[in-house]
Amino acid sequence: MTTDDPDPGVESPAVKRLLLGGPLTSAKQEQQLLPKRRALPIFASDALSSVAYAPQELLMILMLGGLSFLAFSPWVALAVVLLLTVVVLSYRQLITAYPSGGGDYEVARTNLGQLPGVVVASALLVDYILTVAVSIAAGVDNIISALPALDPWRVELAVGFVVVLVTVNLRGVREASHAFAVPTYVFIGSVALMIVTGLARWALGDAPVASSAHYAVQAESLTQAAVVLLVLRAFASGCSALTGVEAVANGVPAFRPPKERNARATLAIMGTIAIVLFAGLTTLALVAGVHYAENPCHLVGFDCTQPQPSLMAQVAAATFGLGSVPFYVIQAATACVLLLAANTAFNGFPLLGSVLARDGYAPKSLDTRGDRLVYSNGMIILGIAAIAVLVVFQATLTTLIQLYIIGVFVSFSIGQIGMVRHWQRELRLLPKTAAAERRAATTGLIINGVGAMSTALVLAIVTVTKFTHGAWLVFLAIPVLTALMIGVHHYYRNVQIETAMDDTVHFGAHGDVALVLVGNLHKPAAKAIDYALAAEHDTTLAVHIAIARRETAQLEADWEEHAVPVPLVILESPYRHYAAPLAGFIRDYREKHGSSVVTIYLPQYIVGHWWEVFLHNGRAKRLAQHLMLVHGVAITLVPWLLDSSKLIDRRRARPLPGDDRAGNHQASYGLVAHIDPQPPAATRRSLEG
Amino acid sequence: MTTDDPDPGVESPAVKRLLLGGPLTSAKQEQQLLPKRRALPIFASDALSSVAYAPQELLMILMLGGLSFLAFSPWVALAVVLLLTVVVLSYRQLITAYPSGGGDYEVARTNLGQLPGVVVASALLVDYILTVAVSIAAGVDNIISALPALDPWRVELAVGFVVVLVTVNLRGVREASHAFAVPTYVFIGSVALMIVTGLARWALGDAPVASSAHYAVQAESLTQAAVVLLVLRAFASGCSALTGVEAVANGVPAFRPPKERNARATLAIMGTIAIVLFAGLTTLALVAGVHYAENPCHLVGFDCTQPQPSLMAQVAAATFGLGSVPFYVIQAATACVLLLAANTAFNGFPLLGSVLARDGYAPKSLDTRGDRLVYSNGMIILGIAAIAVLVVFQATLTTLIQLYIIGVFVSFSIGQIGMVRHWQRELRLLPKTAAAERRAATTGLIINGVGAMSTALVLAIVTVTKFTHGAWLVFLAIPVLTALMIGVHHYYRNVQIETAMDDTVHFGAHGDVALVLVGNLHKPAAKAIDYALAAEHDTTLAVHIAIARRETAQLEADWEEHAVPVPLVILESPYRHYAAPLAGFIRDYREKHGSSVVTIYLPQYIVGHWWEVFLHNGRAKRLAQHLMLVHGVAITLVPWLLDSSKLIDRRRARPLPGDDRAGNHQASYGLVAHIDPQPPAATRRSLEG
Repeated sequence: MTTDDPDPGVESPAVKRLLLGGPLTSAKQEQQLLPKRRALPIFASDALSSVAYAPQELLMILMLGGLSFLAFSPWVALAVVLLLTVVVLSYRQLITAYPSGGGDYEVARTNLGQLPGVVVASALLVDYILTVAVSIAAGVDNIISALPALDPWRVELAVGFVVVLVTVNLRGVREASHAFAVPTYVFIGSVALMIVTGLARWALGDAPVASSAHYAVQAESLTQAAVVLLVLRAFASGCSALTGVEAVANGVPAFRPPKERNARATLAIMGTIAIVLFAGLTTLALVAGVHYAENPCHLVGFDCTQPQPSLMAQVAAATFGLGSVPFYVIQAATACVLLLAANTAFNGFPLLGSVLARDGYAPKSLDTRGDRLVYSNGMIILGIAAIAVLVVFQATLTTLIQLYIIGVFVSFSIGQIGMVRHWQRELRLLPKTAAAERRAATTGLIINGVGAMSTALVLAIVTVTKFTHGAWLVFLAIPVLTALMIGVHHYYRNVQIETAMDDTVHFGAHGDVALVLVGNLHKPAAKAIDYALAAEHDTTLAVHIAIARRETAQLEADWEEHAVPVPLVILESPYRHYAAPLAGFIRDYREKHGSSVVTIYLPQYIVGHWWEVFLHNGRAKRLAQHLMLVHGVAITLVPWLLDSSKLIDRRRARPLPGDDRAGNHQASYGLVAHIDPQPPAATRRSLEG
Repeated sequence: MTTDDPDPGVESPAVKRLLLGGPLTSAKQEQQLLPKRRALPIFASDALSSVAYAPQELLMILMLGGLSFLAFSPWVALAVVLLLTVVVLSYRQLITAYPSGGGDYEVARTNLGQLPGVVVASALLVDYILTVAVSIAAGVDNIISALPALDPWRVELAVGFVVVLVTVNLRGVREASHAFAVPTYVFIGSVALMIVTGLARWALGDAPVASSAHYAVQAESLTQAAVVLLVLRAFASGCSALTGVEAVANGVPAFRPPKERNARATLAIMGTIAIVLFAGLTTLALVAGVHYAENPCHLVGFDCTQPQPSLMAQVAAATFGLGSVPFYVIQAATACVLLLAANTAFNGFPLLGSVLARDGYAPKSLDTRGDRLVYSNGMIILGIAAIAVLVVFQATLTTLIQLYIIGVFVSFSIGQIGMVRHWQRELRLLPKTAAAERRAATTGLIINGVGAMSTALVLAIVTVTKFTHGAWLVFLAIPVLTALMIGVHHYYRNVQIETAMDDTVHFGAHGDVALVLVGNLHKPAAKAIDYALAAEHDTTLAVHIAIARRETAQLEADWEEHAVPVPLVILESPYRHYAAPLAGFIRDYREKHGSSVVTIYLPQYIVGHWWEVFLHNGRAKRLAQHLMLVHGVAITLVPWLLDSSKLIDRRRARPLPGDDRAGNHQASYGLVAHIDPQPPAATRRSLEG
C-alpha cells in the first residue's frame, strides 16, 4: 500500500469526505505548515478584530462622565498602546524560550508548578470559548444592524456560524487559512486607507465630521474617586484590544521552519498593525468628534429608537461618505473579521487540549488527530461549548463582553511571572563568562518583569471594574475546570500505577477451557464451535442456557443429528438470566478441574442496516458486557455478517466453491486455495470500479 | 443455587427492584395464574367502563335530530344489546376452539391465511393503543370535570397515568389484579344499585328527574336518508359498548385451570353485567329525561359556559340527589374504572406481541419475559405509543373516540369469518356417526355465522359514519403495520434460511493464529498476551500499530526489558487507522503461511463509573466493530476491571497473595489454590452484609 493510497473506505463515510476532504497521511503534516503570509490572518484575526470594538468601548465608558472626559482619551489610548507593546515584546521572549506551542500553560507549569499551569490552562480554555461567543455575537450584531429583519433569528444565526466554523476547521489548518486570508487583508487595507485619508483631510484643513458630532451629553458631577474609577474602566475596556496576542505564541508548531523566527516576525507584524489601527482609529474618532453612548437615549438630539451606528461605521461615513463604496467595503470586512476572529480559538483550543491530554490533564481523546490531521475532538467540544454559551446568553454582546478578557489576563500575568522565574534561573545557571547570553537573559528579565507587573495591574483593574457585571461567572468556571483537570490527572496516574508492569507479572498461564454459548444450532453457532475447535483449547464445551423447554429439546435433537463433535452442557436458569448460571458453572468447573482461563465464544450477528438492530435482541452484546465481569474470563465474539458487502477485504468475499452467500462460514477461514488468482493490480482496479 | 435464591444482583439495580419487586422464577409462572374473581376486573374493566360512555354517545347522536328522535333510542339500544349477546356467544365458541390466547389473530391466520391474520393483529395492536389513549383521556376528562383547576395539565396528567400503568403492570399480572379489583367491583355494585333504585322509584310513581329534563332542543328538518344515517350513527356510537369483549379470549392462558371453562364463565358473567348495566342505564336516562347534546350550547335553557355533566352524573344526581354520598361514590368509581380500562390493553398488547414474535412477525425482543415474568418490552412499547397518541391529540376525547372501535370491529369480523371456516372444516372432517360433535359444530357455525354477518355490517356502518371524522388515520395505520410485520417475517425467514445448517457445514478447522493488539506494555496487555498463550494457538503474535514514533520506541524497549515471550510485529499506519493495516497484515500473513482462523486479542478496560467512559477513548470497542468485518476473524476481548467491586463472583475478588488491587491479572486465572476457604454460607452472609 503506497502512502498516497487512501485505504478502502474503512473509516470514511461519503458525506464526511465531501465536507471535509480526503484523509491525509501523517507524512503530509509538514506540508500543512504555514508560511507567514498565511499564518498572519489565522492567528491575527482575533487581535486585529478587537480594533473594531476596542476604541468604541474606550470612548463609550469615558463619555459616561460627560464630553469633557474625552480629554482623557488620548492618554488612556496611549496606555493601551504601551501595554500592547510590552505584551508583544514579552511574547517574543516567550516564543524563543518555549517554542513548543504550550504558551503560557507550559511556561507556568515548568517554572511555577502544576497548579499555576492548570489554572492558566483553565483560564485560556474559558477564554477561547468566550472568544468564539463574543466574536460571533459581535459579527451577528453587525449583520443585524445591516439587515434588521434577521433580528428574530439572532441565536439561530450565531449557532449556525459556529457550526460553519467547526466544519471549515475540521477540514484542516491550511484550507482554513485560504478561506480566512482575504477578509483579514481587506480589513487591514481598508481601515488603514481610511485612517490615512481621514488624517490627510485633517492635515489639509478638511477634517471629517461624524454624524454624532453635534449630539450633546449631560455631564454628571462625579467624585474624584468616581473619576479615577471611570478612567480605569475606560482603560480596562480598551484593553480588549490586547486579546488574541497570545494566539501566535500558542501556534508556533503550525509555522513553517524556521518556526520561532517566523512566529516572532509574525507577532511583531501583527503588533505593529494592531497598534497603528488602534491608535489611528481612536485619533480619527476624536478628530471627527464621534459621540458614542452606552445608552444612546442619553445623547441629546439623537433619535434613540434608531440603532446607534458603530464607531467604525461613523468614522467610515465621515471619511468616505455614507453609502459610498469604501464605506460598504469597510462594513463588510469588519463583519467578516469579527466572525473570523472566532477562528483563532479553533486553532488554539484544540492545540492546548492536545497538550493537556498529552500531560494527562484532559481526556486522551483530545490528543487524537483525525484523518484530516486536526484535533477533531477539541474542535467539536469548543463548538458545543460556544453554542451553549451563545444559547444561554441569547447571543447578546453586552452581557458576553463582561465575561471576556479576564481569562486572557489571568494567563498573561501568570505566564509573565513564569517567564521572570525562567530568566532568573537562566541567570543563576549561566557562567559569568557568557556575557552575551547573560545580557540577553537580563533583557528578557526586564521585559517580562515589566510585562508581569503591568498585566497583573490590568488584571486587578479588569477584575474590580467587571466583577459585578457578570465576570464572577468566569471566576467560578476557572476553579471548576482546574479541579476537573487535577482530578483527571489523578485518575490517569492511578490507572497507570495500577497497570504498570511489575515483578508480579509472569507469562505462561496454563489450563484453559473454551465455552461456546449456543442458543440453537445454526451456521453462526457452528462457526463459533469450529473457531473454538481451531484454537485447540485444552477443553471445548458447548453451553446452552435452558429458558424455553421446546428450544432446548430442539437443540438436543439437532446436536445429535449433526453429530457436533463437542459435548453439550445444559444449564437451568430459573430467573431467565444468562450471565449468572454461566458464572456458577465456571465456579463449579474450576472447583472440579482446577484453575483455568475461560474463553467464552459468542456468535454475533453483524447487521447490514441500522434498522436491523431492532430485529435482533442484541443478547450477545449485553451478555458480553456481563460476562466480562466474571473472574478469569475472556470473551470471543465470532461475527456472522448478514450483509457480505460490509466485509473489509472484499477480495475474499467472492462466492467460491463451498461458500455460502455471505462467505461467512467455510470461506472465512481464508483458505489459500480460495485466494483470487488475479494479479494484485487487476484486483485493485475491480475494487475501485 | 436454589430456585428461591435471587442471584446476586447481576441484572437487578436497586431502583428497579424497589419499583417492580424481586425477580420471579419461571416455576412461579403457575402461581401467577388468575382465579375468575381476579380475572374479571382485569379483563372486564375495558368492556364495563364503556358502559360509562356508550349510552351517552348513543343519546347524544340521536338528539342531533331533535327530541323526537329519542323515540328511536330503545330500539337502537336493543340492537346494541343483541349485538353484544351475539359477540359474547361467538367468543365463547372461539375460546373453546383456540384456547392459546392468540384470539382472533390465531383464528384468522389458521383458517384464512397469513395476510388476514396479520391484518387482524395490526388492527388489534392499533386498538390496544387507542384503548389506552381513549380510556385515559376519558378518565382525565372526568377528573377535570371535578377539579377544573387541573385543566392546564390535561396532557401531563394523561401521560402521568400511562407511566403509572406501565410501572404497575411491569410488576406482573397478579399484583395488578389486586390493585384493580376494588374499583371495578365498586363500579359494578354502585351502578347496579342506582339502576335498581331508579327503576324502583319509577315503578312506585316517583320517577327521578334529570336536571337537563326541561332543556329544549331545536328540531331540524331532515331528509329520510339523513334520518337513517343519524340512527345508524347512533348505533355505531352505542357499539363502543362492545369494545373489550375480545380481551377475555386473548387472555385465556392467564386463567387458572381449567382455563377454557373459567374463561368462558368469566366471559359470560362479563357479558351479562355489561348488558344489564348498559340497558339499565339507557332506560334510566330515558326515564329521567336526560338531554345530552354534542354541543351543549344547542340546549335551550342551558348556560353553555358551564361544563355539561356526563349522562352518568345526571342520572346519579337524579336518583340519589346531587352531592349525596352514593353520587360521589359513583363518580369516583367511574373515573377509576375509565382509567383502569386502559389496563386491559396492558395485558392484551404484550401477549399478542409475544405471539407475533414467536411466529416471526414482530421483533424477537417482544417474546422475552422480564424477570417479573411479564413481557416487559411490549408494555414499554405500548406505553410509549399511547403517550405519543395522547400528546399528538392533546388528550382530547372527542377526537380520539373517532379513531376508536374500528380496529376492534376489523378483528371481530375477520375473526368470526375465520371461525365460520373453522366449523365448516370440522363438519367436513367429522364422521357422519359423531352426531353430538356434528351438532356442536353446526351450532358453532350458526352462532359464528350470525356473528360474522352482524359484526361485518357494523364495521361497514362504523366505517361510513366515522371515516371522515378522523378514522381514516386508522385505515392508514393498519396497512402500514401489516406491511411492517410481513417485512419482519420476510427478514427472519431470510436469516433463518441463510443460517440453517446444511451439508456445507463441517467441523474441524485447522491452522489458527492469535494476534494480540498492543498499544503499550502494561498489565492489561500482559494479561491479553498471557490469555492468548494459555489458549495455545498454533501461532501467537503481538501486533502494534505505529502511530506515534515515541510510543513505538518505548514499546520496543519495554518488550526487551520484560522479555515478553511473543514476537512483536510493528505495522506502519500512515492514515492513523487501526483496522486497515491489520486487515492488510492478515491478508499478507495468509498468503505466506496458508489458511488460518485469526483471533485478535484486544485488552479492554471495564470502568467502574459512567463518567470514566469519557476518560478512555473506547478504541478497543470501535476497533472490535471494524475488525469483525475482516474475513475469517474472531475478536477476543480481554477485560481489565478498573473497579474490582464490579466482579460478578466476588468470592474470588478478595485480595490474595500475588493479586494486584483489582484481582485482574494473576488471580484472574481462578487458581484453585486461591479459592476462598470459607464455607459457602458464611461467604453468602458476608456478601449480603
